[in-house]
Amino acid sequence: MDANIPDANIPRVTAAIYRTGQTILAERLKHLDVSGGEMDALYVVGAWEGLSQLDLARYINVGKSSVTKVITSLEAKGYVCRVRDQHDRRVWRVFLTEQGRDVAPQVQQIFREFIDLHRSGLTDDEAERTARVLDKVLAGLITERNRIAYGTTS
Amino acid sequence: MDANIPDANIPRVTAAIYRTGQTILAERLKHLDVSGGEMDALYVVGAWEGLSQLDLARYINVGKSSVTKVITSLEAKGYVCRVRDQHDRRVWRVFLTEQGRDVAPQVQQIFREFIDLHRSGLTDDEAERTARVLDKVLAGLITERNRIAYGTTS
Repeated sequence: MDANIPDANIPRVTAAIYRTGQTILAERLKHLDVSGGEMDALYVVGAWEGLSQLDLARYINVGKSSVTKVITSLEAKGYVCRVRDQHDRRVWRVFLTEQGRDVAPQVQQIFREFIDLHRSGLTDDEAERTARVLDKVLAGLITERNRIAYGTTS
Repeated sequence: MDANIPDANIPRVTAAIYRTGQTILAERLKHLDVSGGEMDALYVVGAWEGLSQLDLARYINVGKSSVTKVITSLEAKGYVCRVRDQHDRRVWRVFLTEQGRDVAPQVQQIFREFIDLHRSGLTDDEAERTARVLDKVLAGLITERNRIAYGTTS
């Protein structure tokens, strides 16, 4: 299409994977009344109850305001609740509710199948190498994002 | 975190790459008044003037309504215009305006640097292998999305 820009490039294909994956997830999560972004948060809270909102934001790689939005929505749906930390009152910790505990295993199952779908056409070796290389790509991007946001290089 | 779900998995890391990349792009595109999604469209139209809206949607991997939204916004900003196909009046073709032609090379430059940023920590071999494996992952996801949407397996 344009000799100057490689047609198969990492940002283009990762964006397409992300968008196509979100469409598939939305369909699979429809009956649970959970969006793709909420699923990420619910999955992490299910695996790591009592983590702080800030750790959750870091873990799912979104900003503070996005994580607040997601948690507020999951709270409204009755899946999670927020509790102030006893020692540091600035910190909010996130837990599953009873209803969240019912839904979390289904979300985990959907997520596991979603991971398998991504690696279904790959050998184990390809899947592992690729995940490792992508981790390096992500580390580089996070460094650049922090450089922009905080003017630091680390 | 959870022994049942691998911590480094392709959907998680591609989503993080996508989101982190969008933050970086937003910053780099700020002075051009172009969003990340608009950049994709503008870049493709710049490289392939006169393509149909439908081909554009396919190329940037979004639905018909999303591509209409993006093109409407780029039209309002004065960067592109839509022309009906002379032979098939159901088809709209997209062209750059004069102003779009000024901006397109800057967008291409930003996109090229963005691609380079993704592969800056990788060897050429790693970058090419990874793009190839990711193309396979994407093909699998598109098959699954089409199966859901149209009930077909191709």
